[in-house]
Amino acid sequence: MSIVVQKYGGSPVADATSIKRVAQRIVATKKAGHDVVVVVSAMGDTTDDLMELANQVSPLPPGRELDMLLTAGERISMALLAMAIGNLGQDARSFTGSQAGVITDSEHGRAKIIDVTPGRIEAALAEGSIAIVAGFQGVSQTSKDITTLGRGGSDTTAVALATALKAEVCEIYSDVDGIFTADPRIVPTARQIPRISYEEMLEMAANGAKILHLRCVEYARRNNMPIHVRSSFSTKEGTWVVDAESVKDGANMEQAIISGVAHDRSEAKITVVGVPDKVGEAASIFRALAQAAINIDMVVQNVSAAATALTDISFTLPREDGQKAMTALARLKDDVGYERLQFEDSVGKVSIIGAGMRSSPGITASYFESLANAGVNIEMISTSEIRISVIVAENQVDAAVNAAHEAFGLGSDEVEAVVYGGTGR
Amino acid sequence: MSIVVQKYGGSPVADATSIKRVAQRIVATKKAGHDVVVVVSAMGDTTDDLMELANQVSPLPPGRELDMLLTAGERISMALLAMAIGNLGQDARSFTGSQAGVITDSEHGRAKIIDVTPGRIEAALAEGSIAIVAGFQGVSQTSKDITTLGRGGSDTTAVALATALKAEVCEIYSDVDGIFTADPRIVPTARQIPRISYEEMLEMAANGAKILHLRCVEYARRNNMPIHVRSSFSTKEGTWVVDAESVKDGANMEQAIISGVAHDRSEAKITVVGVPDKVGEAASIFRALAQAAINIDMVVQNVSAAATALTDISFTLPREDGQKAMTALARLKDDVGYERLQFEDSVGKVSIIGAGMRSSPGITASYFESLANAGVNIEMISTSEIRISVIVAENQVDAAVNAAHEAFGLGSDEVEAVVYGGTGR
Repeated sequence: MSIVVQKYGGSPVADATSIKRVAQRIVATKKAGHDVVVVVSAMGDTTDDLMELANQVSPLPPGRELDMLLTAGERISMALLAMAIGNLGQDARSFTGSQAGVITDSEHGRAKIIDVTPGRIEAALAEGSIAIVAGFQGVSQTSKDITTLGRGGSDTTAVALATALKAEVCEIYSDVDGIFTADPRIVPTARQIPRISYEEMLEMAANGAKILHLRCVEYARRNNMPIHVRSSFSTKEGTWVVDAESVKDGANMEQAIISGVAHDRSEAKITVVGVPDKVGEAASIFRALAQAAINIDMVVQNVSAAATALTDISFTLPREDGQKAMTALARLKDDVGYERLQFEDSVGKVSIIGAGMRSSPGITASYFESLANAGVNIEMISTSEIRISVIVAENQVDAAVNAAHEAFGLGSDEVEAVVYGGTGR
Repeated sequence: MSIVVQKYGGSPVADATSIKRVAQRIVATKKAGHDVVVVVSAMGDTTDDLMELANQVSPLPPGRELDMLLTAGERISMALLAMAIGNLGQDARSFTGSQAGVITDSEHGRAKIIDVTPGRIEAALAEGSIAIVAGFQGVSQTSKDITTLGRGGSDTTAVALATALKAEVCEIYSDVDGIFTADPRIVPTARQIPRISYEEMLEMAANGAKILHLRCVEYARRNNMPIHVRSSFSTKEGTWVVDAESVKDGANMEQAIISGVAHDRSEAKITVVGVPDKVGEAASIFRALAQAAINIDMVVQNVSAAATALTDISFTLPREDGQKAMTALARLKDDVGYERLQFEDSVGKVSIIGAGMRSSPGITASYFESLANAGVNIEMISTSEIRISVIVAENQVDAAVNAAHEAFGLGSDEVEAVVYGGTGR
């Protein structure tokens, strides 16, 4: 019998009523002839509430204990879900990450899965049960302590379990219908993408699309596990995230060059002005940032003005790391001898993503022309093989997304206004 | 180094502030030179809240899943307590029942401890850590599922761990100073008992004293583990529950014949009137009650009136089982041929308890005289080797407790009014 792994988190398991609704969906999948494994995250605000309790008790809680605390959240949702399924006459058993065989390293709060040994899950399935597994958590291989996987953890649990169980598909449920060509709240004509490759999805996720976490897509890509992103509020097909070949096979028309437009308003831009244009100056700047554990995204270094032999280095980083980065850089002022620092947090990143870019010249030109026609000024540029990103003023993000979406013909004829409650302009 | 096991539950761990206060107490014990193992139960209303969630999802949740759900409660309190201790500069590690080696049978909701293998606790102590253990929970030996121990579970966890670790003492903390000669809310002159034997404590617990659960005292008695019942709000000595020899050794004056007066308002009385006085009639009545899983406490059968060959059988039982019992008995009416059933729920039980009773004649007479002088009518009587219990009208319980307390000279000169907020009459 084919195994289906389903992951539910957020609003689909926000309260008792939602849990009962999800239970019906799970039982329907079981009755359709599948073995079903369900991964759940914590209900609604549980994790935030537990964090708040931790902060009341300790300003800097030890990672081991924070993980022990936070894993109580999934314990609650999974037990309730198992009860709700039992209520529908179907046997269901809940398992902690540890019981499900999710073995991790010992990095509390951001543990990595190093093995999955789902013997108890297989036994439960063999006995006709539905297995409910706590997402986001595992057990350390060396210390046997409870760990959490950090952001995107439950999605990763689902993909890892699906891989270990050789499941047919890993279904990730949320309150949206799938992956769209752009955020429908910004672009009313955005279309749902039927299929997208792992590589494109990785670029979408890394550049602001919130639905799937980078890490879970990367795990799926490495193991070629199909992900089906869909809504728990409807039964229609969502978006399949699969390998590039399957995308081509599934396309019933010529494949679009650009798959989607992603945007991200969570970054800030720092410019180090007047850096002496000598070997090693840039290195010492970025070493200082690395030591402060700051993840840099885009980097641009201007050509130095020959007369002064000074250059400007700009980079983007998560906005919440701004203060930490400025402090680290300020300490370098005498060593490096730069002129001054500029911090700008009202920027946004707009990216076009598409595997077709590889074989289509002129994409960059079309993209930049569309932005120019919309009056959008480009502050920074970075590219990968299948992506072009620009940094623009934050208040120009919407215009840029719409311009790019239209320039590459991504829109549908119908406006997707119902699901998102848009105004349908 | 000597090991001290401390158990905190109820108001001492009701919120973040309480947890921080308890943490200080624990660290003080550690600094006094002990290895410290702490058993905690869930914070405040957590267990009730989780039960409420379960009821919203399912009218009859499976035991396995209910246990999975409820054990989230201790997980939260123990992690927070470990954080609070860490904050004071002392290393603390929390352990689930399973991690602490609390092995049980598979009876979900009322599992029995069958073994304790606290290897991880010993390792943590050896490394200088304070070990925090979730009370009330264990892991099934056969199915490896999470179990809960039922009522009094956390106290039992504490005593079981103390026994397995060969601890010096098991300290049970609550918001009262110890065991009293009577409930100070009823008897303002009630004194705190410095030492009491396991046997007396068992009788006290079985007859209405709420501070320690029967099961934990029984476990301690079997393993001769001293229990120190004390308040988390003061540092003064509480009540030691120890073997009878140690009580004698510790008494600095002649030991009182009666140790205390217990009362219980949770029972009801059922009388089966006009039962044919034949062999087997009583047996069929009590078999029917046993099949309905009703625990009978006291039983009295009147001498049959020779003329009619009919007898009355009265018994007491937990008030909440009243309806179930009446239904079971009603079904027997034709088989047994009794005349009618009487149900009375406004009764109370008042018991005097004392190991000295064994060697002191006349206790029964003194007790009954004191009740008569106070105008209290006795409805039923039952005795053990170290206890005499009577059933009285519920509105006479206070008078009966006071009369007995005074008759056996249990009062102190000072009124214990401060702790209990009494009126000090």
